[in-house]
Amino acid sequence: MIDVKWELGVKAKSDDFEALVAEARGYVARAQQADFGAWVDLPLKYDKDEFERIQRAAERINQDSDYLVCVGIGGSYLGHRAVIEALGGERGRTKILYAGNSLSARGLEKVLAELEGHDFSINVISKSGTTTEPAVAFRILKRRLLEQYGETAAKQRIYATTDAGRGALHDEAVAMGYERFVVPDDIGGRYSVLTAVGLLAIATAGYDIAALLDGAEEERMSLISDGGKAAEYAALRNMLLRQGFNVEVLANFEPQFGYFNEWWKQLFGESEGKDGKGIFPASVIYSTDLHSMGQYMQEGRRELFETFVELAEEYDGVRVPAEPENLDGLNYLEGKSLDYICKKANAATREAHLAGDVPVIEVIMPRLDEQAMGALIYFFEMSCALSAYLLGVNPFNQPGVEAYKKRMFELLEKPGFEA
Amino acid sequence: MIDVKWELGVKAKSDDFEALVAEARGYVARAQQADFGAWVDLPLKYDKDEFERIQRAAERINQDSDYLVCVGIGGSYLGHRAVIEALGGERGRTKILYAGNSLSARGLEKVLAELEGHDFSINVISKSGTTTEPAVAFRILKRRLLEQYGETAAKQRIYATTDAGRGALHDEAVAMGYERFVVPDDIGGRYSVLTAVGLLAIATAGYDIAALLDGAEEERMSLISDGGKAAEYAALRNMLLRQGFNVEVLANFEPQFGYFNEWWKQLFGESEGKDGKGIFPASVIYSTDLHSMGQYMQEGRRELFETFVELAEEYDGVRVPAEPENLDGLNYLEGKSLDYICKKANAATREAHLAGDVPVIEVIMPRLDEQAMGALIYFFEMSCALSAYLLGVNPFNQPGVEAYKKRMFELLEKPGFEA
Repeated sequence: MIDVKWELGVKAKSDDFEALVAEARGYVARAQQADFGAWVDLPLKYDKDEFERIQRAAERINQDSDYLVCVGIGGSYLGHRAVIEALGGERGRTKILYAGNSLSARGLEKVLAELEGHDFSINVISKSGTTTEPAVAFRILKRRLLEQYGETAAKQRIYATTDAGRGALHDEAVAMGYERFVVPDDIGGRYSVLTAVGLLAIATAGYDIAALLDGAEEERMSLISDGGKAAEYAALRNMLLRQGFNVEVLANFEPQFGYFNEWWKQLFGESEGKDGKGIFPASVIYSTDLHSMGQYMQEGRRELFETFVELAEEYDGVRVPAEPENLDGLNYLEGKSLDYICKKANAATREAHLAGDVPVIEVIMPRLDEQAMGALIYFFEMSCALSAYLLGVNPFNQPGVEAYKKRMFELLEKPGFEA
Repeated sequence: MIDVKWELGVKAKSDDFEALVAEARGYVARAQQADFGAWVDLPLKYDKDEFERIQRAAERINQDSDYLVCVGIGGSYLGHRAVIEALGGERGRTKILYAGNSLSARGLEKVLAELEGHDFSINVISKSGTTTEPAVAFRILKRRLLEQYGETAAKQRIYATTDAGRGALHDEAVAMGYERFVVPDDIGGRYSVLTAVGLLAIATAGYDIAALLDGAEEERMSLISDGGKAAEYAALRNMLLRQGFNVEVLANFEPQFGYFNEWWKQLFGESEGKDGKGIFPASVIYSTDLHSMGQYMQEGRRELFETFVELAEEYDGVRVPAEPENLDGLNYLEGKSLDYICKKANAATREAHLAGDVPVIEVIMPRLDEQAMGALIYFFEMSCALSAYLLGVNPFNQPGVEAYKKRMFELLEKPGFEA
């Protein structure tokens, strides 16, 4: 379902390509059998009963809430925010707000102000329940909920997505009777968007989560035997890295893909950025950023390559209207759809950057809907695992994330961390 | 007003620092005398009559419009969006919408849907009036304005910021009687936020543009004789680049600085990314991205350094409430302000990344208001010019931006560009 094309230009060599693809193909089974590899078969083996409960909870939230506040950080919020925004934002009554993904007082106060005078529910997403950012935000939002609804009704407006059997949030949810969903033990945060971690918010926003999983399953079928196009993309990335192309820029022509780019950066940055290795992941939204980062892309340091995420289907939307005076010189485009112009700009950008010695990869989705989005997510997850194995690192750990936390706990004089 | 500190860690050497600072100090006069160097003395020499007209126009818009749609791309929208969002968003009646900064039909349709049932005005910002993205959006929005208000009233709701004497938009504005403001000839787009290009939107959003210019003037006074702290920051960047630190990550702990980061990326990327040179500019918002890019920052390829934009003043906002059960283990933070915790996280991140061999620079603003924001903008503008001269490139041109446009016009079969 997801297609991959590429042009390397004159500076990049492709001698290693076939050998790297062959090596990558061998890593599918390794990912599948890894400790945190349960995302590989998730689209087939997900918990159908929990899935039904998610659907019902989403309906209930749309009946009783103007807002669902998703409290989570990193993999506990980026995936569903990416999907909801890429598909065009909330479709139903309930709008999604995000909290607990920073320590900004100004940011949290904005969320509290937005809730003023509205009905809301909370989906708190944390495996342990003790991560500082979401835990602080949850305390503050829970207090607001209690003040607004009283204890009995407030409890029915809290949905806890957490560990199945232990941890602070699990224990609180059991004690208080919050509806619970599971953060699986065998799937890491950045690979978790198609679990309950992402699905409740996506369903609440009005999207068809069955189609999302269908798309992922369709993509799984096309990759599971030998890595398919994901093995090719993984091989290309490592081949280019070995030639000194250290920075990959993910490029997209739809502004609503901004958070998808952020999800992709976490997926690849956290999977590969270790042991002093890893391509530096960056992103742009074009044509916007052709007028900012475009100069660098065209003529800056030649150590980068570019991956375009593209939609094959033309979008039949707004068109260029007539204007007899033609003061702006645009009459040659009269009647053309904006998307037609956008696709020409996309092709022109690829060609211009290629001519500027930037190797160019295209990752092409057939259209923009839940099924294609599920396929795209699965494609990048598989690509990332294979690519990290090619690089020689563990795709599923993140040992460096603890360093700032430990130092922060010391500075905050947390019991057990005093200097 | 803007302070700069740094710690380089054990891997980066500072042998060249004094010589590079001395060289940078000599470039202030060169920037001031350059063809596009009028931003240097702008905070002192701006057009006071136009400034008054901007203030009056902003008042009028707040009387008659729920929305002001800013139509512009690159330097014609990033600066004011950065300032408005960093300061906390719109304060008055009029909300700002942005159009003409991409070719996305979905994006433009969202703006059109948002306007439905509301009063609005347009600020079209384009030196020539023929740049494709804003020109297309302006055609479509102008038609909506005509349908909604009729020709006479519609004309009074269009504010054209354009060339003082020529060009398609200038000519249309004169012919139709739109109120006009000036995109100066001697200031490039990415240095133009403190001209009419940025000021009308910022004033309309309810901010004190006199204080913004005062802050810039105060910073100008501290940099104009010998580059001050800007020369130090410019020297640090080039010193690190020469040692192989090719990527600079601008880091901020306030989510509302997201567009400021984008403005900074344009400023430095477009000024320095040429002739195969230039530090690759990237950005993060912490602590959010400590849970995504944090792993890479801590342990990925050691070719990056990090610049933190920080607020010295503590923000007395939301605090951690009591919770007797302490299920989440947060009671050690009870009564602490979120901003106190955030500042500890900031310090912890600097220390952790430094220990991971990432050289760390701090750019410190005293507080978050218009005056400090004006100073910060001026500080980075001066730093960027000095840094580009140290690198050996022209800080004020952008020759590579034309490549994709030329190819796009060919693909669109624009008259004069047919293959």
